[in-house]
Amino acid sequence: MANGEAEVRNKKVLLKHFITGFPRESDMELVESDTVRLKVPEGSTAVLLKNLYLSCDPYMRFRMSKHVEPSFVPDFTPGEVISGSGVGKVVDSKHPDFKEGDYVWGMTGWEEYSLITSPEGLVKIKYIDVPLSYYTGLLGMPGFTAYIGFFEICKPKQGEFVFISAASGAVGQLVGQYAKLTGCYVVGSAGSDEKVSLLKHKFGFDDAFNYKKENDLDAALKRCFPEGIDIYFENVGGAMLDAVLLNMRLHGRISACGMISQYNLEEHEGVRNLLSILAKRIRMEGFVVFDHYHNYSEFVEYTVSRLKEGKITYLEDVAEGLEKASGALIGLFYGRNLGKQLVVVARQ
Amino acid sequence: MANGEAEVRNKKVLLKHFITGFPRESDMELVESDTVRLKVPEGSTAVLLKNLYLSCDPYMRFRMSKHVEPSFVPDFTPGEVISGSGVGKVVDSKHPDFKEGDYVWGMTGWEEYSLITSPEGLVKIKYIDVPLSYYTGLLGMPGFTAYIGFFEICKPKQGEFVFISAASGAVGQLVGQYAKLTGCYVVGSAGSDEKVSLLKHKFGFDDAFNYKKENDLDAALKRCFPEGIDIYFENVGGAMLDAVLLNMRLHGRISACGMISQYNLEEHEGVRNLLSILAKRIRMEGFVVFDHYHNYSEFVEYTVSRLKEGKITYLEDVAEGLEKASGALIGLFYGRNLGKQLVVVARQ
Ligand SMILES: NC(=O)c1ccc[n+]([C@@H]2O[C@H](COP(=O)([O-])OP(=O)(O)OC[C@H]3O[C@@H](n4cnc5c(N)ncnc54)[C@H](OP(=O)(O)O)[C@@H]3O)[C@@H](O)[C@H]2O)c1
Ligand SMILES: NC(=O)c1ccc[n+]([C@@H]2O[C@H](COP(=O)([O-])OP(=O)(O)OC[C@H]3O[C@@H](n4cnc5c(N)ncnc54)[C@H](OP(=O)(O)O)[C@@H]3O)[C@@H](O)[C@H]2O)c1
Repeated sequence: MANGEAEVRNKKVLLKHFITGFPRESDMELVESDTVRLKVPEGSTAVLLKNLYLSCDPYMRFRMSKHVEPSFVPDFTPGEVISGSGVGKVVDSKHPDFKEGDYVWGMTGWEEYSLITSPEGLVKIKYIDVPLSYYTGLLGMPGFTAYIGFFEICKPKQGEFVFISAASGAVGQLVGQYAKLTGCYVVGSAGSDEKVSLLKHKFGFDDAFNYKKENDLDAALKRCFPEGIDIYFENVGGAMLDAVLLNMRLHGRISACGMISQYNLEEHEGVRNLLSILAKRIRMEGFVVFDHYHNYSEFVEYTVSRLKEGKITYLEDVAEGLEKASGALIGLFYGRNLGKQLVVVARQ
Repeated sequence: MANGEAEVRNKKVLLKHFITGFPRESDMELVESDTVRLKVPEGSTAVLLKNLYLSCDPYMRFRMSKHVEPSFVPDFTPGEVISGSGVGKVVDSKHPDFKEGDYVWGMTGWEEYSLITSPEGLVKIKYIDVPLSYYTGLLGMPGFTAYIGFFEICKPKQGEFVFISAASGAVGQLVGQYAKLTGCYVVGSAGSDEKVSLLKHKFGFDDAFNYKKENDLDAALKRCFPEGIDIYFENVGGAMLDAVLLNMRLHGRISACGMISQYNLEEHEGVRNLLSILAKRIRMEGFVVFDHYHNYSEFVEYTVSRLKEGKITYLEDVAEGLEKASGALIGLFYGRNLGKQLVVVARQ
């Protein structure tokens, strides 16, 4: 398909300017005028990717703001193509680890073709007999996040009581299934009745509630966990964390994975119930999945085998075309996605 | 000295009523009318203690309020003698582990003599060639708290940057000295210039500041830790914790030992910078020293040997007589104590 010598069109999504508050579609721009030569330049060790699936991830919000002190991920550059995790096919390679036709996932651009100048960060896809889009979610960064955050950080034991916020999302839906496979009692919260129903009937959670319909989160948690919570997989922060702290059991663990309810606020909400950490001997631990890539293949083997046995299922929310990318990304902060949000650039 | 058959006067300090807000001397009452027989009743396995030194500890504030849901320590009973940690001499014993003349420390009453009906919780004092009052502080509950909270929870490494709040107190002064012995860079905060001077010149801290004179805690921490904090030994909570979170380094650890700034507030202050826990991969862990008593003798050996080598020093603030006990306890919440606050009931 890809003619090495051809110059082809290369649509891309740019960040127009740094932002504050909630992101809007108008903060990004689709540019159609660029072209790209489908050949890696001589003398480089780059890889040229045809992007197939792009991942919309909450952390990208941090990259859209200017930070005086460096954030844990580098800021985007206004006027340049947005970068993010994605799945691609190698069109040309001057790197010994990759060859034309390989499927890979890792950091790429929100565009049709990307020249990856540091391909060492790309992961060659081993199992291509599962949907390739899964490498944006189930078998990519969010799935791996669920694995590390649950097994490594929470150290779950059979029979423990597990609570997951943003439970129907890319990470949460998998955490819940891992917890069920571990023999835990699992409850999730999500922002719509449809999501709650998915949690209970598709992902096998023992219980779930729509946090937007509860006017007392503490009461909702007491209803779902009369004996308290051993493990909280934290995706949202703020008021939910505060209510959870009141309901933790002795020696509970909180995996601080994300706090999406705070990402667009200029001043973060205060959390008042931290004394519980002391009184209940709680361990709250933050992690960033990028630190753990040495465990990636262990995660893939564990998850693919359970996927093939039908013990794990995964829901994706698919936006068709780069035109839809900015809206799909923004939708995360309004809970519009039903499952893992991704963008199809091309199907192969 | 103690005549087994005698009935003697037994002055005691009672809690008059449950309280809210800051405790006041008038919430407690010294009662002189009681008497006690200096003999353990037949058929019991109790121990009768002559109380020598009583410990004033911040956690006692929790016991002075009524809790609907049980707190991590049981509520006091209004009208009854206050109980707390103390050092005593065995006057009579019907328990096989204790005999007349033994020195012990553990939970006792704020009174001259206490009948301890569950003496299993008492610790027989091994080293009596150090001041016995040290078993309310350096070699008692607060010292052991410093040991567990620093070594077990923080897992310090040589060269790390350590910050301690309420640093001149019973726990903090020892944490700082342990940290120096471990080869760390150590900074403490305290509430007066006199305390700051003690930290620097008596306890060997590398630096210290008076938090009451800083109008920007974040700036004070940045001044003391231009490269950030690896370990925060948390004694105060609230605004200090919020400022520390902005200054933690990657993979930092926070030992949640206490949050004294919150104990008297009806509604706790909100902490806003928790996203740092995630971005900086921080582990924040609460502990209660009572869970760790199996390690007590290890702690005593470590600490007594360094005390005898002159590598550890310890400052006490001594209130003379049960008359002074309620004022001494309350003083903790106004920072009146200079070092470990204790009350002398009798010197032997
Ligand atoms: N530590 C790491 O290395 C790492 C890696 C990946 C992801 N994460 C974090 O994990 C979390 C989940 O990520 P994901 O990819 O699985 O996203 P996701 O859950 O698929 O999508 C985000 C979801 O967050 C919920 N949400 C949005 N605003 C909210 C608010 N104000 N309050 C409560 N919920 C809100 C929405 O669901 P509802 O309809 O349920 O509100 C939305 O669908 C995020 O916090 C993310 O930053 C961390
Ligand atoms: N987890 C456990 O098992 C355990 C065991 C023992 C103690 N603790 C905790 O450890 C901490 C220290 O206890 P300690 O026995 O060593 O007490 P301490 O430090 O000897 O005495 C309390 C000190 O706290 C400071 N303080 C009082 N109110 C404050 C406020 N609003 N803001 C900031 N500082 C304030 C005062 O010092 P300044 O003049 O410096 O303000 C006061 O001298 C307490 O939080 C206590 O609850 C925990």
